[in-house]
Amino acid sequence: MQTPLNIAIVGATGSVGEALVEILEERAFPVGDLHLLASMESAGKAVAFRGKNVRVREVDSFDFKQVGLVFFAAGEAVSHTFAPRAIEAGCAVVDLAGALQAPAVVPEANAQAFLAGRKAVSPCSPAIALAVALAPLRGMLAMQQVTVTACLAVSSQGREGVAELARQTAELLNVRPLEPAFFDRQVAFNLLAQVGAPDALGHLTLEKRIAEQLRETLGLPLLSISTTCLQAPVFFGDSLALCIRTQGPVDITQVRAVLSVAPGLELVEEPGDYPTAVGDAVGQDVVYAGRLRPGLDDPCELNLWLVLDNVRKGAALNAVQIAELLIKDLT
Amino acid sequence: MQTPLNIAIVGATGSVGEALVEILEERAFPVGDLHLLASMESAGKAVAFRGKNVRVREVDSFDFKQVGLVFFAAGEAVSHTFAPRAIEAGCAVVDLAGALQAPAVVPEANAQAFLAGRKAVSPCSPAIALAVALAPLRGMLAMQQVTVTACLAVSSQGREGVAELARQTAELLNVRPLEPAFFDRQVAFNLLAQVGAPDALGHLTLEKRIAEQLRETLGLPLLSISTTCLQAPVFFGDSLALCIRTQGPVDITQVRAVLSVAPGLELVEEPGDYPTAVGDAVGQDVVYAGRLRPGLDDPCELNLWLVLDNVRKGAALNAVQIAELLIKDLT
Repeated sequence: MQTPLNIAIVGATGSVGEALVEILEERAFPVGDLHLLASMESAGKAVAFRGKNVRVREVDSFDFKQVGLVFFAAGEAVSHTFAPRAIEAGCAVVDLAGALQAPAVVPEANAQAFLAGRKAVSPCSPAIALAVALAPLRGMLAMQQVTVTACLAVSSQGREGVAELARQTAELLNVRPLEPAFFDRQVAFNLLAQVGAPDALGHLTLEKRIAEQLRETLGLPLLSISTTCLQAPVFFGDSLALCIRTQGPVDITQVRAVLSVAPGLELVEEPGDYPTAVGDAVGQDVVYAGRLRPGLDDPCELNLWLVLDNVRKGAALNAVQIAELLIKDLT
Repeated sequence: MQTPLNIAIVGATGSVGEALVEILEERAFPVGDLHLLASMESAGKAVAFRGKNVRVREVDSFDFKQVGLVFFAAGEAVSHTFAPRAIEAGCAVVDLAGALQAPAVVPEANAQAFLAGRKAVSPCSPAIALAVALAPLRGMLAMQQVTVTACLAVSSQGREGVAELARQTAELLNVRPLEPAFFDRQVAFNLLAQVGAPDALGHLTLEKRIAEQLRETLGLPLLSISTTCLQAPVFFGDSLALCIRTQGPVDITQVRAVLSVAPGLELVEEPGDYPTAVGDAVGQDVVYAGRLRPGLDDPCELNLWLVLDNVRKGAALNAVQIAELLIKDLT
């Protein structure tokens, strides 16, 4: 039994924050005192942990010296403001917003490279899925290009995204006029070609982040990555279609053998079957893979389909797994 | 005014068949007698054309010598059985099912190569979208690889697909148990990783067809193509995310200039804006393009988003455009 560690979760009332509390309990993380923090609007709510209600407090007035480890799950601005305070107070920090200058970690891909650190970024959900699936292939394939279309669930935009898809769908089914609010247009029964605003060249922050975090977690700084992030009318679970091009011919049988025993990955191998976000990934801890196939015309190509729970392995679970690495040094 | 031509539509009661009737009228196609044909179950229905009801008759007993041009829009098996009869009777034939051994034609891409023929295949919707967008770039880019994720509307599976998405969505919103029928699993609020059954290597018929038809319509037999076809919970309108890799660096400004005047294409150029299936494509005759951007890290790369009405330009409209080429020789 490890020495318990006092822990704070910033953004505790969001869906990822709640999943963090659940997963800490599920995995019997050695939590001493648990401090749940949020903005002024959410302070005062209570969240259950180990059979007791924990009151959510305002992050502004929190003294980070009370804890040894902090999860930041409240968006980039909050991480920017409060993560430096936590680090100054001596805390280990796991940032789920990707705002901190710290190593991006997906334990299945780069746990060993990270062992010495006291702060880490838990990557965005598509980067986590890709890292889990591609890390075991690094030794056998000289990967040159990865092209990925990531279809994101509305829950990647938090509770407002979920509520908006439900509201839009109900309005359309009841033939009422649609008034988009949280999304700027109809997302129900539609696909949006971007998630967030593009830069001057047309790239989304999330698309650039996927590429950077994937290169970093795989330790492949020269890997060329093309990403398109779509907003899909799906409540929970991200889905990714990817095409990998390699320097030499791909041995699909060997790839299948490697992926079928890869940590954190479940390869659906039955002919004609494949995993889906709703049918397989949601509520589960692993990344599901399927539709493993060679190129149509290119022997140096590999195609794959991935789905994962964007709130669990795509966010909260990966952050807790990082924390499990961190506390080896802390406790 | 061209000499009117007697025409038959096989599969007249399907959504594509109905769109064919509408588009022939809209475009003032020189139709003499219009014969609407279908299976025994659909015979007897009536479809409006130029203000009159045309009775649908059974295809089995039809004498193709009565007409000069036949559209086949009833699926592969029907094309296989009846298209040879129509050809034997001297008819020009446009096959929308991709079953006929005949040139695949997208008029914006290969009208000139086709002028002499009397039979043609109208390609599948994703291949049409890609051909319209890539044909104008052939002269300026040495395209080597196209990687495309095609998210198909349920209407690509006909009326049953539309009805099933509506039924599943209503059941889920009303918290009733879901019983998938037409699709083998939940498609509402989910993405299915394949459309139809895969071959032994894992490729779908539709994925192979997209690659073959695109190479043919572009006249680029060596173009390497990777396709993934997803079934999206979208009623109407296909959406495609594509990445093109070229032999030399891509001049995005030049690509934008070419695409902004390309026939059959509407490029959404406003910064931050992009087209969607529901918001732009449905009911329209053009393919909409957006999110035109360079590679994140590769100067020899181009990324693009396409949406189109899968029933109109993705099927019926393209077939009528082919017929407009055919009748230049016939009338």
